Amino acid sequence: MLDKVRIILVDTSHPGNIGASARAMKNMGLTALYLVNPQEFPHADATARASGADDVLAQAVVCNSLDEALSGCSLVVGASARLRRLTIPQWDPRQCAEGIMTKKDGMTTAIIFGREHSGLTNEELGRCHQLVHIPSNPDYSSLNLAAAVQVICYELRMAIEAGKNRSGSEAEVEEPPVSADEMAHFYTHLQETLIDIGFLDPQNPRIMMQRLRRLFNRARPNTVEMNILRGILTAAQRHQKQD
Amino acid sequence: MLDKVRIILVDTSHPGNIGASARAMKNMGLTALYLVNPQEFPHADATARASGADDVLAQAVVCNSLDEALSGCSLVVGASARLRRLTIPQWDPRQCAEGIMTKKDGMTTAIIFGREHSGLTNEELGRCHQLVHIPSNPDYSSLNLAAAVQVICYELRMAIEAGKNRSGSEAEVEEPPVSADEMAHFYTHLQETLIDIGFLDPQNPRIMMQRLRRLFNRARPNTVEMNILRGILTAAQRHQKQD
Repeated sequence: MLDKVRIILVDTSHPGNIGASARAMKNMGLTALYLVNPQEFPHADATARASGADDVLAQAVVCNSLDEALSGCSLVVGASARLRRLTIPQWDPRQCAEGIMTKKDGMTTAIIFGREHSGLTNEELGRCHQLVHIPSNPDYSSLNLAAAVQVICYELRMAIEAGKNRSGSEAEVEEPPVSADEMAHFYTHLQETLIDIGFLDPQNPRIMMQRLRRLFNRARPNTVEMNILRGILTAAQRHQKQD
Repeated sequence: MLDKVRIILVDTSHPGNIGASARAMKNMGLTALYLVNPQEFPHADATARASGADDVLAQAVVCNSLDEALSGCSLVVGASARLRRLTIPQWDPRQCAEGIMTKKDGMTTAIIFGREHSGLTNEELGRCHQLVHIPSNPDYSSLNLAAAVQVICYELRMAIEAGKNRSGSEAEVEEPPVSADEMAHFYTHLQETLIDIGFLDPQNPRIMMQRLRRLFNRARPNTVEMNILRGILTAAQRHQKQD
């Protein structure tokens, strides 16, 4: 999955930031670095800050335009230091990693990082399907470029590790939660049953049902679990005394 | 909460890393920086890399020993690039942020970062109650010092933001989940009830109960919710037909 994520740095001023970004990527298991019009590259500062990630730097693709760097990508995410009043939907870094992880088309995702001082232009943002914003101190919100690359790549790594643990710890395949429709049917059945067994006041079911809804929504039952829950309700209804 | 977290850098070689760490901290809303025997400090590289976080740098406390830097801290967390075979329990950065967030004593937490090339000594690790390890590429696992500070501080920020969203969206105070003992009592009561209403085979309750346990453990019911669940079980038992 990490092979399918391309980090694109646009118009970077400081070559040290390019090197540090390459290191951050390699630490988290990413390798595809694209540089659009870097101001100074190659450069000794880039190599020094890359430390052992000089292979990522050596393979970096230098492009003359953002379009060139985006070629072959089906999802384009733009990193934005500001919460922008734009119509582009916005993720935090964790949502970004989940979004990329659950993408099913097998094609490459691009994550674009803009200039150190001014970020991405509106035209460049216009190429993005999604924005990603790193939560920060409102009084001092602009992260160093390589630090931002580090955070985004860290969340990708965490998503991968979570996926590994899930498939490692449970032999059976993790089933997805049931649909909202099925949850709604369950709540109707639950309410009926609770009235039948004399637990719920039929005149005033609202607050109790709200609390139960919150509890079961948290558990996010899958199909097998939902069948068990429905089976319990049916058994409770069948066994009630007729009074 | 972020005021109660102290970042301690031990024996740092490169002053640029101190500056970049100060910036990473301020970006995420932390301010308390302690430096144990920094090799060169103050230094122009530190100031340059701190960018707008020169206030954090100016207030940094320089110490002659780790003990001095730890004074007043009730929880000591050591950052470790290796997964160590030690008896000290280990967190990932997210667990670290949650652990610090849920600490109730109101006292300061220290997070210690070791030398660029060799990390923390065994003696320094011996002072730690917890380790924190950033998941990484097993072939290239050593993050730049300031990048590691960035990731740990980012998770603290994310935990704060999650807390804000929770308190914003629910007027009532979030109640903690019930104890493992109370969950055990609930499962006993649930099993009895499911046998009473003819849903569970008393000869073979194991697999079904295992599935229900997994579901309710995920929901992590609080005291009010547990009382509701127990009330439902009692009502179902009381209303069963006597056959």
